[in-house]
This record gives sequence, C-alpha cells and structure tokens, in this order.
Amino acid sequence: MSASPHGAGRLFGVGLGPGDPELLTVKATKIIGAAPVVAYFAKKGARGNARRIVDRWLSGASLELPLLYPLTTELYFCDPAYVAQLKSFYAEATESIAAHLSEGRDVALVCEGDPLFYGSFMHLYVRLKDRFAVEVVPGVSGMSGCWSAARAPMTWGDDVLSVLPGTLDFAALSRHLRSCDAAVIIKIGANLAKIRAAILEAGRCERAIYVEHGTGEAQKILPLTEKTDDSAPYFSMILIPGQGRRPGSVQ
Amino acid sequence: MSASPHGAGRLFGVGLGPGDPELLTVKATKIIGAAPVVAYFAKKGARGNARRIVDRWLSGASLELPLLYPLTTELYFCDPAYVAQLKSFYAEATESIAAHLSEGRDVALVCEGDPLFYGSFMHLYVRLKDRFAVEVVPGVSGMSGCWSAARAPMTWGDDVLSVLPGTLDFAALSRHLRSCDAAVIIKIGANLAKIRAAILEAGRCERAIYVEHGTGEAQKILPLTEKTDDSAPYFSMILIPGQGRRPGSVQ
Repeated sequence: MSASPHGAGRLFGVGLGPGDPELLTVKATKIIGAAPVVAYFAKKGARGNARRIVDRWLSGASLELPLLYPLTTELYFCDPAYVAQLKSFYAEATESIAAHLSEGRDVALVCEGDPLFYGSFMHLYVRLKDRFAVEVVPGVSGMSGCWSAARAPMTWGDDVLSVLPGTLDFAALSRHLRSCDAAVIIKIGANLAKIRAAILEAGRCERAIYVEHGTGEAQKILPLTEKTDDSAPYFSMILIPGQGRRPGSVQ
Repeated sequence: MSASPHGAGRLFGVGLGPGDPELLTVKATKIIGAAPVVAYFAKKGARGNARRIVDRWLSGASLELPLLYPLTTELYFCDPAYVAQLKSFYAEATESIAAHLSEGRDVALVCEGDPLFYGSFMHLYVRLKDRFAVEVVPGVSGMSGCWSAARAPMTWGDDVLSVLPGTLDFAALSRHLRSCDAAVIIKIGANLAKIRAAILEAGRCERAIYVEHGTGEAQKILPLTEKTDDSAPYFSMILIPGQGRRPGSVQ
C-alpha cells in the first residue's frame, strides 16, 4: 500500500465477487465491517447490485456513500455528451471520496467482481492513487463465478483464453474467436444477435454456453444453441470452453 | 450441484485464491472447516502450496488426503512416458477420492487459484462428475491476485484480454501479443527468455510487469525491463495492462 498524507484515511478498492454474498473473500468482509465509510456505484433510482451483495457484511455503524451514475448503460460511449457527463461524474465521485479521506476516514469502495478487471473503480483509482494510500483487494471475477456455476472447465494446458467485450464489431469478434482456444464474451445486452453471428461464423457455437446472473438467485445457464431470442441483460456472459491442444492429452 | 448416489458423499472443488490465506472466500472456509476429508495436490516430498494456504482454515478433525504428483513440472508434456505417468496418477487420485465418497464422506479438493482455470482439479472433475455430486467453488485467480498486488488496472472499456501460457512457441506468443490489448502470460519458468523476446518483438515491453509469488510473503513485483536475468519460478507471471481504445476515453 502507498502512503497517505499524515492523518489522512486510506482507500480500499474491494472486490465483491460475482453475486453470491458468500463469495466475498475473508479479507473483504473484514475491511467492509471495519470501514467508517462504504462507497458503491449504483444507477440513479436503484439500490444497485454492489449494495445488495455487501448487505450482510456491513457493520451498521458505517456511513454509506452511493455514487450515482448519470446514465444507465455504457452503450453510448461514442457520444461526446455522454463522455463529458461520465467525466464529470467520475470527478465528483473522486472529490466526495477525497473529502472523507482528507478528514482521516478510511473508505471502502466496494465493486462487483474484481476491481481492476473492467471495473469502474479504476476510474477513481487513477484519480486518487497519487493523493492517498490505496489498497486493492481482488475479488472472484464474474467470469470465474459463471464458469464455476456452469461447471465448465475453461482452460487446459496451453490453451489461450481471450476475454472479448461484446461491444466489439462483428469482424473483430469473429477474428478473435478464430484465434483463441477458449473465450469469454462479456457485455452482451443489445449485442447478442451480432455476437451469436460472430460465434457461428467462427464455427464455435457448439460448445458455447450462455449464462445470465451467474451465482445469483436469478441464475440461468443454457447452451447458446438453446438461447433463441435476442434479449439479454448487459451483464450476461457467453463462455466457450477450451479443449486442450496437447499431444497425448491426459484429459 | 448434480446428485450423488444414495448415501454417497459430495465432492467440492474449492478455489483457494492466489496465496494470501485471507483471500479465500467465506464459502470456501466454511466448506473446508466442515469437510470430513480435505484433499490437495502436492509434489512428492513437499507439503505444497495448497496445503500451506489452507492451513489456518482446517478444523483439525478432518482427514488429510495428499495427492502426490509423480513428477515436479509440466515441462515434459510431449514425452509419452510422462503422459502415461500422469494418466495413471490422475486415475489413482480419482479412486482414492471416490473411495471416500462411496463411503458417504464429503471431500473438499482444495486448489490454488480458481479450480476451472488451468487447474489440476479439472482432470479429477471429468473423471468423477458422472459418478458423484460435485460443486465447484470459484476462487480469486492467480492473475487477479497479481494485478491487484501490482495495482495495475488491467482492462478498460472494450479492451481484449488474452491469457497466454508461456509454453507456447515464440511465433504464437508474438502473434497473440500483437492482436490483444491486454495480456497475462502464465507458466513462465524456463520460458522467460523466449517470452521476453516475443514481448519485445511485439513492441509491448514498456508496460510489462513481472510478478513473482503474487500476494504471498515472497512477493516480488518489477517492470519487466528491470528483470534482467532469465531465472523465474514456473508460477510467476507477466502482466501487460490495457490502456482502453475508446474515442473520447474517460480514463
């Protein structure tokens, strides 16, 4: 952990794992139970998934600091107005956390999954890391939660795994799908039809598994070939397990 | 969880995370504390890393079942004699676990990292899954532990992450390194000189981070450019963080 100015609090970026509150690490539960301030991202008007996951681990004595997104999805990332709005949101969130840290209070910023893996935490981390002491507590990633729930061994021996955001265009998706052994496609949402077409084009449909709300109460797992409609939540996932490529495989 | 035959025990594949015993999940500690049999892989003559990580979470009442590898590394995978030896090792390990399950005892097979991500657990899972009830408990992966320890935000927005075993040949390594945004190279060991050359060839050396024993007591983190010798443990790792490729990035 880096050093905070004398008397200032420390920032903890704490991974909450894929959804099941029992999948927090012991270290995460201790930090959350002891932190005077617990901050989390949520959509305006909603309690948010991070707040729900962390519920049973809050001490009751801590101050809650919700950081409310101005918009509901990441889908408009090319729109300059959206980018400007996000920038000012991150700047405001940074200052609301910095205010607590400056007054000597530790802040646990809790995040779904693993904080440094496609996490919003990173936007605050880069803005705060040179001003305050920061510690990052890794969490079980959403993809580990999903392939464990699906009981799908993902990577064997010298398999190459690629993690592909579904926001990529069709050509990039199918190019990457052809060159790896195992793949995880994240950020599905409105991209499902395009993603399915790329998987078909790359000849990878047969082993593909669709997972919605992995490890949560609303969990749904089915072969992609049986997912016939195009409606999916943004945080669903498609898994394409590897098969190992070794001579004389011991699988 | 699938069903076990009447009266038979259940197999739990339990991820232990990257090395720090506080990075076990709450679910993992409960299963390990309650299991009548705790099994783990180790090299002949050594206690093994999994056994060390799990130490403080054992109840003392459980029976320990070490599964001892016949050889010390995976490096000889093309040798038919090695493959035959490994096959018979997995077959024996399967039967020693099956014996406990058949007699009604639950078995927790504990594994470093995440069980279905390059894990030896998978070899026993495929041999036991149709005979007994199996539950997989995901763990924090070694790579999440390493990038958190290095405080390196790995993937932003629509970055593509590739996980590349260092056992791949030079051409495959450099081809994959050129086509992804972020990369994790695992299984370093004797492959370090080749891996470094591939990273240089792909022009990715500047951001590369070398991590040894991530989250453990012997942890060592340095820029790859400062790692000048070619000696590295098999379970060290090289991280190449992504930078995000979006128009109008909000980083």
